[in-house]
Amino acid sequence: MSFAAGQTAAQTFEALQAYVKKMLHYQEALELIYWDLRTGAPKKSVELRSETIGTLSDELFRMSTSDQLAEYLEILSDPGVFSTLERKWQRTIEELQRELDRSRKIPPERNKAYVMLTSQAESVWEEARAQSNFEMFRPYLEQIVAMNIEFVEYWGYDENKYDTLLDLYEPGMTVAQVDKIFGGLREETVKLVQAIAHSGRRIDETPFVRRYDVAKQRELGIMLLEAMGYDFNAGRLDETVHPFETAINRFDVRVTTKYLPDDVRSNIFSVIHEGGHALYEQGVSTDLIGTPLCGGASMGIHESQSRFWENMIGRTREFWEFNYGKLLKLFPSQLADVSLEDFYRGVNVVQPSLIRIEADEVTYNLHIMIRYEIEKGLINGQLRVADLPGIWRDKMKEYLGVVPGNDAEGVLQDVHWSGGSFGYFPTYALGNIYAAQFRNALQKAIPDYLEHVRRGNLGVIKQWLNDNIHRHGKMLKPAQIVEQVTGEAIDSKYLVAYLKEKFGQLYGV
Amino acid sequence: MSFAAGQTAAQTFEALQAYVKKMLHYQEALELIYWDLRTGAPKKSVELRSETIGTLSDELFRMSTSDQLAEYLEILSDPGVFSTLERKWQRTIEELQRELDRSRKIPPERNKAYVMLTSQAESVWEEARAQSNFEMFRPYLEQIVAMNIEFVEYWGYDENKYDTLLDLYEPGMTVAQVDKIFGGLREETVKLVQAIAHSGRRIDETPFVRRYDVAKQRELGIMLLEAMGYDFNAGRLDETVHPFETAINRFDVRVTTKYLPDDVRSNIFSVIHEGGHALYEQGVSTDLIGTPLCGGASMGIHESQSRFWENMIGRTREFWEFNYGKLLKLFPSQLADVSLEDFYRGVNVVQPSLIRIEADEVTYNLHIMIRYEIEKGLINGQLRVADLPGIWRDKMKEYLGVVPGNDAEGVLQDVHWSGGSFGYFPTYALGNIYAAQFRNALQKAIPDYLEHVRRGNLGVIKQWLNDNIHRHGKMLKPAQIVEQVTGEAIDSKYLVAYLKEKFGQLYGV
Repeated sequence: MSFAAGQTAAQTFEALQAYVKKMLHYQEALELIYWDLRTGAPKKSVELRSETIGTLSDELFRMSTSDQLAEYLEILSDPGVFSTLERKWQRTIEELQRELDRSRKIPPERNKAYVMLTSQAESVWEEARAQSNFEMFRPYLEQIVAMNIEFVEYWGYDENKYDTLLDLYEPGMTVAQVDKIFGGLREETVKLVQAIAHSGRRIDETPFVRRYDVAKQRELGIMLLEAMGYDFNAGRLDETVHPFETAINRFDVRVTTKYLPDDVRSNIFSVIHEGGHALYEQGVSTDLIGTPLCGGASMGIHESQSRFWENMIGRTREFWEFNYGKLLKLFPSQLADVSLEDFYRGVNVVQPSLIRIEADEVTYNLHIMIRYEIEKGLINGQLRVADLPGIWRDKMKEYLGVVPGNDAEGVLQDVHWSGGSFGYFPTYALGNIYAAQFRNALQKAIPDYLEHVRRGNLGVIKQWLNDNIHRHGKMLKPAQIVEQVTGEAIDSKYLVAYLKEKFGQLYGV
Repeated sequence: MSFAAGQTAAQTFEALQAYVKKMLHYQEALELIYWDLRTGAPKKSVELRSETIGTLSDELFRMSTSDQLAEYLEILSDPGVFSTLERKWQRTIEELQRELDRSRKIPPERNKAYVMLTSQAESVWEEARAQSNFEMFRPYLEQIVAMNIEFVEYWGYDENKYDTLLDLYEPGMTVAQVDKIFGGLREETVKLVQAIAHSGRRIDETPFVRRYDVAKQRELGIMLLEAMGYDFNAGRLDETVHPFETAINRFDVRVTTKYLPDDVRSNIFSVIHEGGHALYEQGVSTDLIGTPLCGGASMGIHESQSRFWENMIGRTREFWEFNYGKLLKLFPSQLADVSLEDFYRGVNVVQPSLIRIEADEVTYNLHIMIRYEIEKGLINGQLRVADLPGIWRDKMKEYLGVVPGNDAEGVLQDVHWSGGSFGYFPTYALGNIYAAQFRNALQKAIPDYLEHVRRGNLGVIKQWLNDNIHRHGKMLKPAQIVEQVTGEAIDSKYLVAYLKEKFGQLYGV
C-alpha cells in the first residue's frame, strides 16, 4: 500500500466513523420518538409525529443505502486496508455491507409497495381480529407471503428459502438447525404438559386476586430492578399496556411495565423480563459506542436474557426466599393467607391456553413451534394461507390439547404477520433454549449461584452475564456466543432437562 | 409571467412547501428531545444525547441558510409570483427570508466562536453563582456583550443598537417604545409598592405552610387545566424543577409544573401560567400547520397569555369563589382554618424581594426594568460590565427598596446573559402590559366576564382569546395584534389602572 493510498484510506476511515455516528444519531432520535409514542404522547399528536418519523427514517434509510457509503465500504474492504483496522471496525464494515447489499437487492418500487402493503395490512388485521374474521385479512396475508417469497428470491438462499428470513432476526440460524432443536423440545414438552394435566395437581390462584395499589406496585418494580443491578441513572421505568425495553442510547435503556390492579404477578414478571433485556444493553462494552455493534447480538440472544431473569431467577424458590418478605411488607393484607410456598407455586402455574403472550414457561414454546411450522410451510409453498385457520386449530389440539373457539383467539392473535415479520417468532423459543444453556454454564462456573440468589446477591449473576454475554454486543454472532459460553452448539436438551426437573418437582411428575 | 415561468414557480412553491415541512420535522424531533431531557431523561444519557442534538440542529441550521432555500425564496419573492400566493405563504416567505438574512450576515467563524463562548459561559455562570463570585463571570459577560454589539453591527440598526436585539424576541419593538411604555409604569409601580409597604397590612402566610400530598396536587393541576379548556388529548402534564410549556407539534402542547410539598400555591399558579401558554398554542389555526407561522406571535404576546390566566383570572376573587370548594375537598385539614377571603389575599401578597422569579404581580415588572436598563446601557456602551454589581444594588434600592446581600441573589441570579439572550427580559413585562390591554378589550366585549369566571364558565374567555389572539399564530406582528384587539397601540396605562384598582382594594391604599 503506497503512502498516498494509505492517507486516503485513513481519511475514508475517519469519514466513515463520522457517517456512522450521524446514522446512530438519527436512530437515537427515532427511538426516543417511539418510546414517547408508547408511553404517553397525546393521542392527537400522532398524525403529525408520523410525518416526522417519515422524514427521519427516510434520511436514515438514504444514508444506509447511499453511494457515498458504498464507496467508503469499498475502499475500506480492500484487504490491505481492512486488515489494518481494529476488529470492531471490521465487524462494523461487515454489518454495514450486509445491510447495504440487502437493501440494494430489492427494487425500490417493490420495497415501497411492501411498505404500503404492510402498513395497510396492520389496520386490516386489527379490524379482522376485532371481528374475528380471517377472510378479511386473508388477501393481505397472501400478498405479504408472496412478497416475502419474492424478496427471498432477490436476496438468494442456499438450502431453504425460510433460512434467509430467519437470518434477518437470528443471524446464521437455519431451518435445518431449528428443526433439529425444536424437534426434541416439542416431543418432550408435549409429554410434560400431558403429565402435568394428568397429575391432578391444581394450584389455587384465587389468593392472588386482590387489590394491589398501583403506587406500591411501582415501588416494587423499582426495588426489583435495583436488586437486579439495573442502573436508574441510565434508564427509567414507565407504564404501558404492552411492556417493553428500548435502548435509546448506551446510557439510556428504558423499561416499561403493566400494573394489573388485581394481580401483582403481571408487574413483577414484566419488570424482571424487561429488566433482563435492559441489563444486556446496559452491559455492552462502552468501547462499542459509536458503532452499530453497541446492542444485543440477535433477537434470540436478547430474549435469552429476559427469559433467564424472568424464569430461571425470578421464578425460583430461592429468589422468593429472599424477596417474599419484602413483598409481604408492601402488601401485608393482600397476601396474608399466601405462604412463600403458595406464592412460589402461584408464579409457576402450568396450564395450556390459547394466547401466546399469556402462556407459561412450559407451554410457551409450543405456541412458537406452531407459528414456526406455519411460516416455514408458507414460505416454501407447502401451505396455503386459506388453510391457516384449520391448520392452527389442528396443531393447537395436537400440541396443547386446546382449540380456539374463534380466529381472534387463534390464527389472528398476533400482530407479527400483518407487519411482514416472518422469521421473528422462532427467536422467542430460541431465547428460552439459549437461556437454559447459559444457565447450565453458569452452574458450572458458579455452582452455588442459587445460594447467591437466596441471599439476594444478584450482582454475581449480573457480573457473569456481563462478562460472558453482554459486553460483546454484536461483535459475536449468536452461535459464537453460545459456543464461547458453553463450549457447545445450540442444543435444546438443557431446556428439556431444566423443565422436567423444575416442573417435575412442582407437579410431582 | 409566461406559462413556462409559471410552471417553474408552481414547482418551486411545491418544493418550498416540502422543504419547510422537513425543517419543521427536525424542529419537532428536537423539541421532543428537549422536553425529554427536562422531564426525566436519565442523567447518564445526556452526553450522547447532546451529540444527537448537534446532528439534528446542524441539519436544521444548514437547511435554514442553504443556497437551495435562498433560490426558492428569490424565485417566489418575484412580485409577479409573490402576489399570487396565499397570505400565509407570503408571511412564511418573509419569515424565512428574515431568518436567512440574519444568519448569513454573521461570518460563520464568528457564529461558531459565539456558540462556544456562550456554552462555556453557562457553566462558568453556574459556578460563579454558586460561589456568589461576579468576578469569575465578568470576563465572559464582557465578551458576550462585545460580541452582541459586533453582531448588531453586522445586522445593522436604525436608531438604537438595542432595537436590533429587541427585535429578535419582540418583532418590531424599539427602545423608543419601551422607554415610553416602561416609564409611566415604573413611576406608578414604585409609588404603589411604597404605599402598600406603608399601609401596615400584612397577610399571614403561615396557614399555607402545611403538607400537601403530591398525588393530590397533581389531581388539582389536571382539574385546573381541564377547567381552562386545555386539551389533554393534545398535551400532557409532567413535573419539573422549573415549570415550562412546549409545543412539540400543533397537537402536542405539553406543560409541566412543580409540586412544593409544603405550599400548594406554587403548583396552582405554575399550572395556570403554563396552561395559559398552552391554550395559545392549542388555539392557533390548524390552517397554519406545515408553516413556521404555527405558534405564538412573539415572546411578549406569549407571556401575555400566561400572565393573563395566572394573574387576571387565576388570582381573582371570582375564580376562587368557584374553585375554593374543590380545593377544600382535596385538602380539607390543611386549609381548615383558611377562609376564601384569606386564600384570595394569600395568593395576592405584595412584598418587595430579591429574586425575579419569585416576585409578585406588582413588583415583578420592576425587576424587569432593572435588567432592561442595564442591557440597553451595555449594548450602547454607556455602562461597563465591571460596574454591574453596584448598579444592580443601586437600582434595587431605588425601585424596590431592598438590596441583595451578595451577587448570587443579585446580578448573578438569572441564566439569560450567560446564554447571550440580550433583548429577552423586556418581553416578560411587555407580556403583563399586553395582558392588561387585552383584559380591557375583553371587558368591553364581555362586560360580565368575571361573572362567567365566578360560575366556572371559563370557556367563554378561552373562546374570546382563541378568536382574537390565538388563531392568528405568527400571521400578525405583535403590534398588529394589539391594534386589532384593542384599537390602540401598546400602552401601559391599562396595567397601571388594573394594578392600582386591584391592590388598592386589597391593601386599602
